[in-house]
Amino acid sequence: MAKVILKRERKKRLEQGHPWIFRSEVDRIEGDATPGDFVDVYNHQGYWLAKGYINPASQIIVRVLTQNRNDELDERFFIDRIRQAWAYRERMIPGVRSCRAVYGEADFLPGLIVDKYEDVLVVQILALGMERRKDWILRGLLDVFAPRAIYLRNDVSVRELEGLKQEKGFWYGEAETEIEIEENGVKYIVDIENGQKTGFFFDQRQNRAALRPLIGPETTVLDCFTHTGSFMLNACLYGAKHATAVDISEHAIETAKRNAALNGFTNVEFVVANAFDYLRESVRAGKQWDVVIIDPPAFAKSAHAVPKALRGYKDINLNGLKLVKDGGFFVTSSCSYHVRPHLFQEMIADAAFDAKKVLRQVYWNGAGYDHPKLLAAEEGDYLKFAIYEVHSRR
Amino acid sequence: MAKVILKRERKKRLEQGHPWIFRSEVDRIEGDATPGDFVDVYNHQGYWLAKGYINPASQIIVRVLTQNRNDELDERFFIDRIRQAWAYRERMIPGVRSCRAVYGEADFLPGLIVDKYEDVLVVQILALGMERRKDWILRGLLDVFAPRAIYLRNDVSVRELEGLKQEKGFWYGEAETEIEIEENGVKYIVDIENGQKTGFFFDQRQNRAALRPLIGPETTVLDCFTHTGSFMLNACLYGAKHATAVDISEHAIETAKRNAALNGFTNVEFVVANAFDYLRESVRAGKQWDVVIIDPPAFAKSAHAVPKALRGYKDINLNGLKLVKDGGFFVTSSCSYHVRPHLFQEMIADAAFDAKKVLRQVYWNGAGYDHPKLLAAEEGDYLKFAIYEVHSRR
Repeated sequence: MAKVILKRERKKRLEQGHPWIFRSEVDRIEGDATPGDFVDVYNHQGYWLAKGYINPASQIIVRVLTQNRNDELDERFFIDRIRQAWAYRERMIPGVRSCRAVYGEADFLPGLIVDKYEDVLVVQILALGMERRKDWILRGLLDVFAPRAIYLRNDVSVRELEGLKQEKGFWYGEAETEIEIEENGVKYIVDIENGQKTGFFFDQRQNRAALRPLIGPETTVLDCFTHTGSFMLNACLYGAKHATAVDISEHAIETAKRNAALNGFTNVEFVVANAFDYLRESVRAGKQWDVVIIDPPAFAKSAHAVPKALRGYKDINLNGLKLVKDGGFFVTSSCSYHVRPHLFQEMIADAAFDAKKVLRQVYWNGAGYDHPKLLAAEEGDYLKFAIYEVHSRR
Repeated sequence: MAKVILKRERKKRLEQGHPWIFRSEVDRIEGDATPGDFVDVYNHQGYWLAKGYINPASQIIVRVLTQNRNDELDERFFIDRIRQAWAYRERMIPGVRSCRAVYGEADFLPGLIVDKYEDVLVVQILALGMERRKDWILRGLLDVFAPRAIYLRNDVSVRELEGLKQEKGFWYGEAETEIEIEENGVKYIVDIENGQKTGFFFDQRQNRAALRPLIGPETTVLDCFTHTGSFMLNACLYGAKHATAVDISEHAIETAKRNAALNGFTNVEFVVANAFDYLRESVRAGKQWDVVIIDPPAFAKSAHAVPKALRGYKDINLNGLKLVKDGGFFVTSSCSYHVRPHLFQEMIADAAFDAKKVLRQVYWNGAGYDHPKLLAAEEGDYLKFAIYEVHSRR
């Protein structure tokens, strides 16, 4: 195996448990390495640190697989890692049948995402090193999950950073491309072929369940950026009197409608609209709800997009807050990594100030159990989710 | 009512929902105010902001009761606030019988703490303004809770900052001073007369419950700073094979033993020891547990105590991490407000580095539902609680 020797002046990120080595941290490579090969990583003193796979074409030149020298990087290693990832979900979410089953680096399987939708798996392979072990991965997935079918959603641009082409389609077996799943007791139709990412966002599972105590038989709910309806559907399950579900995408609203029908919920108004406009117009019209939820897509995809993103977040949070009945609840979230938690909280505080509201925090959380985080990899800490009780100043 | 007029250059904390006005923020007081009187608060432009009670003897000269001009500050107002505080607990923790029932400023009742232990209330009155409304509070507590007895635990030094004397004893009715309560299905004996604070710490309720998925029939648990045994008892309830409970206080261990017996748990070893020493010696002896829990008391009671506190936290976290079996769980907490969350996480990262462990964050939380937080009052954000899966580098 080739040796990757790191520079003396690099940060000790690797020793802290961060699984990436950037090209700029490498002093030299000794021996020949074909892209995707396993390599040993050493510090500048020749001290062994890790094994991983190399991709000279990527900024992330090595993705670390293990920091235990005795580990053999063979098929067994990969299958064991998949088995451990699934055992962890079964432990943390008893009885789970649909969830994120493998979460890349956070499951010590860099570049591999597996979402389990009942007996169908949807897979993303995001690193060349992983792509080269597709056979092993396939065997591991069959071994551990015995799925009916596996669908590849490799239609993501990050693959190009690794020199991989985009593709999608069945990898193993065949199934319908709309799968019915259940989460928190709510049924969903998941479009594994054309849905966003792999078709469903599991990271808010616990946060959706956190709506339960907010909802009573008289509760009205506004769910903005409802996408395929997840928060609204949980509110209905918990007995809400009425929900209004808003999304700009006609296709998303169509799916949300089908999901509501699937669960037998008839007390929902569906609105195809830009949530920014809908919120502003609802304020103007003097509308009020007991619970207002805003769960927008990521507004900041890079660090320099943060100021503009914060203006966007503030706009919807400000108007969202104004729409909450006195003593009601405001549910707000951001999945932009670059909007760090303190920025998110400051933005909400600013919005509350402008809206003349005093906020009491009832609940604060990140992503759920199936999205663990490496302590050393701050990148994994992207989701902010909060529930506030809202009181007016006047 | 006297008028408190604020300085122009103060921060707009009040408008952000912070319930305290410091003496240094006051420009002048117009009219006469006896300590504890209700006052109106205005900004420098004469704009009405809030009503609260004044205590010229305290650094916190006004504690805000309302930012709604129409609110009448009478008995009804206080009773309603108590009723709302209890309604909130009943909503958020269905079926709850024992919890923090009133949490001072965060329940819009500055200076009033009420812990409910079944049908006995334990009360702390921490502000002169509240002390002067004791009759109203008593009526409110009787109205809302119909308790068998109310015990005053006013034996706290912060009362002296308000010019109030320390005292304790029954305020209403009479009861035994050891009350049996249940939390998460675990029974506890609470010593309301001589226990720490009011006798029990409810803030970790949800965090204790978060142990559940970590525990199986073969799981061994080390609980340091066990106090009266709460984390260890939850682990036993969830089926742990064996628990070791360590505390420096003989009295605490005696109570922990009684609590274990009360629940019929016989698989616990009790150790009276300094946890710092116990952890270090256990490392030296090569001991290992599946789950290691450290929940120490606050090490930093002021900002300048933080560096020393962090050294203390690092010591116990470092040794605690070394005692976790590979793939096991490390459960760690800090209730020092001054050790902010990022400092706490950095300390853990440093400890993990030194212990040659890679940590995967499974769970992160603060205090539970009965300890809500005003968004504007960072002081309320004191509790950090984390669960990590522990992997060795070697």
